[in-house]
Amino acid sequence: MINTKTKLFGVIGHPVAHSLSPALHNWMLKHFDFNAVYVAFDIEPRLLRNAFKGMQAFGIAGLNVTLPHKASVVDYISFASPQVRHLGVANTIKYTESGLQGYVTDPYGFTESLGSQKEKFQDASVLILGAGGSAQSILYALKDLECSEIMLYNRTFEKALQLAAKASEQLGIGSVSVLHSEQLKDAVNDAEIIVNTTSIGMHPDTGNPLPFDGILKPSHFVYDLIYNPLQTPLLRMAEKAGASWQHGLGMLIFQGLRSLQIWTDTDVQLNSNDLELLTAHLIREMQNS
Amino acid sequence: MINTKTKLFGVIGHPVAHSLSPALHNWMLKHFDFNAVYVAFDIEPRLLRNAFKGMQAFGIAGLNVTLPHKASVVDYISFASPQVRHLGVANTIKYTESGLQGYVTDPYGFTESLGSQKEKFQDASVLILGAGGSAQSILYALKDLECSEIMLYNRTFEKALQLAAKASEQLGIGSVSVLHSEQLKDAVNDAEIIVNTTSIGMHPDTGNPLPFDGILKPSHFVYDLIYNPLQTPLLRMAEKAGASWQHGLGMLIFQGLRSLQIWTDTDVQLNSNDLELLTAHLIREMQNS
Repeated sequence: MINTKTKLFGVIGHPVAHSLSPALHNWMLKHFDFNAVYVAFDIEPRLLRNAFKGMQAFGIAGLNVTLPHKASVVDYISFASPQVRHLGVANTIKYTESGLQGYVTDPYGFTESLGSQKEKFQDASVLILGAGGSAQSILYALKDLECSEIMLYNRTFEKALQLAAKASEQLGIGSVSVLHSEQLKDAVNDAEIIVNTTSIGMHPDTGNPLPFDGILKPSHFVYDLIYNPLQTPLLRMAEKAGASWQHGLGMLIFQGLRSLQIWTDTDVQLNSNDLELLTAHLIREMQNS
Repeated sequence: MINTKTKLFGVIGHPVAHSLSPALHNWMLKHFDFNAVYVAFDIEPRLLRNAFKGMQAFGIAGLNVTLPHKASVVDYISFASPQVRHLGVANTIKYTESGLQGYVTDPYGFTESLGSQKEKFQDASVLILGAGGSAQSILYALKDLECSEIMLYNRTFEKALQLAAKASEQLGIGSVSVLHSEQLKDAVNDAEIIVNTTSIGMHPDTGNPLPFDGILKPSHFVYDLIYNPLQTPLLRMAEKAGASWQHGLGMLIFQGLRSLQIWTDTDVQLNSNDLELLTAHLIREMQNS
């Protein structure tokens, strides 16, 4: 029951109509018995400044930030975590009386979502598809997973080159090789792990797959950050090849969990039973929307 | 279940910790099946400007306004209803893309809360205790209830005089007589209806009653705007005298209902069964807080 002590959390983006964050966070708030609600705010870029003034005035306890605001919000926070300073983006804003604090929880979300698959990354060769914000978060996460080799492929070669340079300069990741398209097939063969950070295969455009049919192997671990659909064409190829694979719902859940930990100054955790229930809840929510 | 379509409503005040509005509105939102939540925001006066900028940026669908902001919010609205222009206060702000709209729903709340008692006001002599914002709203409501005489008593005579002058000039209510304290007892005797708009008898200071013991009569109708406690010392005297009486919970409910009608552009109504359930819900909420 909502009362005068009920705290308000939310997600800001433009658009936000398809965000799963309200479903995710309201489930967790109830599960962990926090007196709070979480709603979605569609905010045009030109109103972002007023939104953050309003966040402080209203005392909105915390906000998640999604596209297209992840980089621009950094201008409105008083305190930026080291990850925010490195990555130049924030996806989690926390209200404090002395000012707004900014965090990035995507790298944590990726790492924690791996569960027991985490071991696979040690001394492994990892191929990352894409060179946008998500690829950057994955690179940041890989820093601590001790892989032996990172390969980066992006349709626009220059963009991958820039991300590799940034990873080397700012994140201290030295061994990122950038691939030309003619090297891609060999890279797939060499890699033990493939992570798709692009939107290829995402709903509603699920008919245009990556050209990996027939070259995936049972030894591959294929991770797709997309969660709608749960099994992208890439993941269907992985399954067909007998490879292990993972969809993006786990990363969504764990980045959200980390946001909640930050907002509430707690160490709330989800056990495997919780995860199963929450995943089923989110799948239902996707089917209904 | 909250999703990305869930609208946000709220109350702003300072303090708001004891507001019943979240309990009232969340009950109604659920009852009428609106996809929305209603929370309380404690906003210091110095942050009011940023709050309204934020309201527009976040697209917060509607806000109730309580002390100390009722007059100052008028500066931040683009459209003021005739009642807001007359009374100089607003308790209901509605978001529209073209700007914020301000309304006052207290007069409606008072009138509608009367139910069948409304007839008693026709050609009646009404004594109003107090000369603050609530007294002004009651005067405004009385305009349409066709009473024959309105008497105003306030501890500070000057303040009552000013309100009477304002009522005459701005509301067109000509027949408001202002009482000195020595006239109060005779006025009680002459009046058919007594409305207390002061905080005398309000929780936690319930031990300092109005000096009406022994002068109330069975023919009196005594209305106290206070709802905590439900039966103030004044209302206990009324009951003891065999008079009919009414507490302030009905006015709270109906001013809130009117806000909801405005925000949702609907004509939602509460029948007597709804009113009973909602009243019981609010009483439980008061007992628990």
